[in-house]
Amino acid sequence: MTLAIAQLISSQAGFWEKLEAMVTWDSMADEQVMAIVREIIDAVKQRKDAALLEYTRRFDRRDIINVADLVVDQARLKAAWHHVSPQERDALNHAKARIEAYHHKQLNQSWLYEEADGTQLGQQVTPIEKVGLYVPGGKAAYPSTVLMSAIPAKVAGVKELIMTVPTPGGEVNELVFAAAYITGVDRVFTVGGAQAVAALAYGTATVPRVDKIVGPGNIYVATAKSLVYGRVGIDMVAGPSEVLIIADGSTDPDWVAMDLFSQAEHDENAQSILVCPQSDYLQKVRQAIEKLLPSMERRAIIARSLERRALFIQVSSLEEAAQVADFVAPEHCELSMENAMAFYPKIHNAGAIFIGPYASEALGDYCAGPSHVLPTSRTARFSSALGVYDFQKRSSLIYCNAAGAQTLGKTAALLARSEGLTAHARSAEYRFGKV
Amino acid sequence: MTLAIAQLISSQAGFWEKLEAMVTWDSMADEQVMAIVREIIDAVKQRKDAALLEYTRRFDRRDIINVADLVVDQARLKAAWHHVSPQERDALNHAKARIEAYHHKQLNQSWLYEEADGTQLGQQVTPIEKVGLYVPGGKAAYPSTVLMSAIPAKVAGVKELIMTVPTPGGEVNELVFAAAYITGVDRVFTVGGAQAVAALAYGTATVPRVDKIVGPGNIYVATAKSLVYGRVGIDMVAGPSEVLIIADGSTDPDWVAMDLFSQAEHDENAQSILVCPQSDYLQKVRQAIEKLLPSMERRAIIARSLERRALFIQVSSLEEAAQVADFVAPEHCELSMENAMAFYPKIHNAGAIFIGPYASEALGDYCAGPSHVLPTSRTARFSSALGVYDFQKRSSLIYCNAAGAQTLGKTAALLARSEGLTAHARSAEYRFGKV
Repeated sequence: MTLAIAQLISSQAGFWEKLEAMVTWDSMADEQVMAIVREIIDAVKQRKDAALLEYTRRFDRRDIINVADLVVDQARLKAAWHHVSPQERDALNHAKARIEAYHHKQLNQSWLYEEADGTQLGQQVTPIEKVGLYVPGGKAAYPSTVLMSAIPAKVAGVKELIMTVPTPGGEVNELVFAAAYITGVDRVFTVGGAQAVAALAYGTATVPRVDKIVGPGNIYVATAKSLVYGRVGIDMVAGPSEVLIIADGSTDPDWVAMDLFSQAEHDENAQSILVCPQSDYLQKVRQAIEKLLPSMERRAIIARSLERRALFIQVSSLEEAAQVADFVAPEHCELSMENAMAFYPKIHNAGAIFIGPYASEALGDYCAGPSHVLPTSRTARFSSALGVYDFQKRSSLIYCNAAGAQTLGKTAALLARSEGLTAHARSAEYRFGKV
Repeated sequence: MTLAIAQLISSQAGFWEKLEAMVTWDSMADEQVMAIVREIIDAVKQRKDAALLEYTRRFDRRDIINVADLVVDQARLKAAWHHVSPQERDALNHAKARIEAYHHKQLNQSWLYEEADGTQLGQQVTPIEKVGLYVPGGKAAYPSTVLMSAIPAKVAGVKELIMTVPTPGGEVNELVFAAAYITGVDRVFTVGGAQAVAALAYGTATVPRVDKIVGPGNIYVATAKSLVYGRVGIDMVAGPSEVLIIADGSTDPDWVAMDLFSQAEHDENAQSILVCPQSDYLQKVRQAIEKLLPSMERRAIIARSLERRALFIQVSSLEEAAQVADFVAPEHCELSMENAMAFYPKIHNAGAIFIGPYASEALGDYCAGPSHVLPTSRTARFSSALGVYDFQKRSSLIYCNAAGAQTLGKTAALLARSEGLTAHARSAEYRFGKV
């Protein structure tokens, strides 16, 4: 069977419009989802733990009678750490050390400078106090996501990191608990869905209220996050995962095919895009896909994803490939080409750039160092990888003495009067003795 | 007449609950506003310029027949610059130079480091390409807001900065145009409201589509911004402006009263909070308020704001005052005390900290240097002053060679298999020769 994978040629009329239509993803929840999520949030806001228990019973099919059953203590996390295999512990430790090292480079420091008249200006950088980390349960329960979110938060200095992870049918993912253990997550609750988001945003007797909620989730989680935004901070509203690979034809087509698979195996909405100036190379990758697909464990989901959303694009040059990447603003951008190090500065819009044929996305997903929590659905045009900066905030610092208040005050007073704000003007004028 | 201004004493029972109730601001739009805004967005999305023209005629009561009437060219901006007074030009230039100097210190640079095995990791920092700047019209048209938003964007390197400002009844604010002129705003359109936000998010034949929209606005603008969030980035959804002043009693009460006025004069929902350990000083500031109020041009709005939302808080110590500030997370925090320089690190949650009695908020509003676009409604717990970083994004950089792919690949493959993602595992394994 030959997969029907869409192909576009950049020189053909209407290319950019077609491309836009194929990469646009509308993550807006429909009215029905919105109504359900609003109801859940209101219930948790009003009935707190009771509502949390009720929804967990219903949605996670758990036979529990007490909110204490939603609490996972540190001893249980430690037990999980000892439950996973030594090889898995080594791998988690290796990944943790690398992710930590990278994120230490992202730490923003406070600064303050003095001007000639004694005025001092600066910026105080402080960690967010309490952060909620949403970790999906069931099929998409990834310990790597715990590492990739908890470590930047801890490096930033977040005082209390609170994780929620649903355990549908009571099924616990030991690796997720183990990852929470080694990253120093402070508290863990086995709740999920919109009810977990509502509990983190409003607090219950059991779940503390946080200042910001991060982490991926399904449409209910994403909708809940967008509805509590403002009351708490959120990281982003994530859509399906994507990769865009720019190939110059020098990489083994099997490697590229497998990289496209590794995106497609996430779910049927994941998007794999291959951009190359050579039509015969695009053909070779198609052949590699046909050859390799039958050997893949998740071939059904891969096939569905590729047929629904994959896209092969023949461009006229690598320069144009960079333009396509900037237009798409992919979550992951692989540069599978010779001299990729000279090429990457041409890419401006991408969550992460994987430079050269050896840097497969999989390395970044688990252990290279940068977070794998990245902007999707073209939002890399204006947003960035989850990082330490997402767990810090900056307060502007303004000091001035009598001398500084003279010069600054005169300008401030004049502009304030121009805007009709005379209390502002007089407040400035008091400081330079004009009353 | 004596103003009825609320007062709390921190030692009394229920203090924190009462405080929370008084500082919480629900900026959620009601269903009716939401429905109107949705309709406007849909109309602009579908009928583009025609809808923009129609809404501008209706809401701004402008008698125009062509979209060209919404376009302000550079010659018009330059004319505005020459129209304002020489004193105003000097003040705008002074403010601009200071705001630029401060924001240059905020520029994030790209970085890349190499590990022993040749793996390179880093972060590429690039400006957002197109940014929309919403400037309110009518009563709240502030040239200072143009400076405070446009300058950080330009320092970041934004290629195209597009400003929208409504001109209700056709009335132009020359100072706003003049500010756009000296900050190098690239294009200006006289549209406002939800229709301006929709045009910036979706693009029309006349208004270009942008990647991010920043700037304050009324409830329709704020609601529109929250609805287009995801398609474009937004800065924040701003609530009413607030100041929290911590006083040790050493500042002239008239100065503090005037600072409270300068917040209150914005609008009746603005909030002025004074925190002090001394009840007699709180009383002196009350007396100063009564004395000064009759002389204020905007006394009606000041009185209404103070009676609705102002709050005097008697605390047991300055330490506790800092805790109150962190709890409230005010947009502006003034430290009107001796030795404020030693005190400010105790404040963790505040948009901007004004250090010492000479640093009145008014100086920061116009010309000290940091942006006056700050997080309101307690969001300083998790967000920051508008800055250069809001106009930049970061792409993670991951390079590795065959040697690096060995060690990274093994860890990645092991964790991928633990997660059941075998395409990820095989993609990593190809790179270290295990097929």
